[in-house]
Amino acid sequence: MSTTRNDVTINDEGTHAITIVREFDHPVDKVFRAMTQPELIARWIGPYGYDNVEVTNDAAHGGTWTLVQRNDDGEHRFRGVFHGDATPELTLRTFEWLGLPGHVSFESQRIEDLGDGRSRSHVTSVFMTAEDRDGMRASGMDHGVIEGYERLDDVLAQM
Amino acid sequence: MSTTRNDVTINDEGTHAITIVREFDHPVDKVFRAMTQPELIARWIGPYGYDNVEVTNDAAHGGTWTLVQRNDDGEHRFRGVFHGDATPELTLRTFEWLGLPGHVSFESQRIEDLGDGRSRSHVTSVFMTAEDRDGMRASGMDHGVIEGYERLDDVLAQM
Repeated sequence: MSTTRNDVTINDEGTHAITIVREFDHPVDKVFRAMTQPELIARWIGPYGYDNVEVTNDAAHGGTWTLVQRNDDGEHRFRGVFHGDATPELTLRTFEWLGLPGHVSFESQRIEDLGDGRSRSHVTSVFMTAEDRDGMRASGMDHGVIEGYERLDDVLAQM
Repeated sequence: MSTTRNDVTINDEGTHAITIVREFDHPVDKVFRAMTQPELIARWIGPYGYDNVEVTNDAAHGGTWTLVQRNDDGEHRFRGVFHGDATPELTLRTFEWLGLPGHVSFESQRIEDLGDGRSRSHVTSVFMTAEDRDGMRASGMDHGVIEGYERLDDVLAQM
């Protein structure tokens, strides 16, 4: 299933992967900073209506990240670890929603320079099973990603 | 491609995964120990003819592992990180051969109790691309896994 909505292209690839592509009207380094610094991540990650009440992001080999999101329905906790030191060229990290522990995916991100102060983010997430991959799509992931990138546009404009 | 040789079944699954299944004539806890303690790992991991001259394995969330193998042709270095604290039920770790940096896979392992002091290991490795997956198979992985498990049989018999 391939979805393009609100400038985000999300694609199921093979049986284990999801790819997400999005362009930004800002240069690579700035986008990377907004995606890496905890105080900036807190301002955009996830859909509208969620407060990111805890964000840590130690983006180095063996470093961990944590995210606690809160909305009217309660709290969602996420965590992961970094493989390698994160750079705009390659960030590798694991991803787990603690509401479904043990179903962990592995994510690769590259931010491409488009020139003229613009950039394109490429994310690939791979899952241990096709069921985990399908479950992630069914969980409302698209919604969270699309709205999160819209919020990120606002953060980038203010940086 | 599915291969069963020397009691190891190795299977390409979908386009991003490799699964490896192997039974052991030893109980779950003992096999887990031999796969987790650095001084035991050093005695079996990899094909015959390789010396494991450096093994670290901090099998906890955010912990790292390293492996340096040496044979007549030179040295091979590997590294990865753990997601979650490793248990016999679920060990999750990344895998990178530093000869091809950035091509990182993500591995899940479960050791199943077969009763009568026997166990079965299930490994799934997922790769960012089908090319990475195929490259791993082409690199002689099967050979290393099959011989490594034979060496592990000997270590288990001596424990």
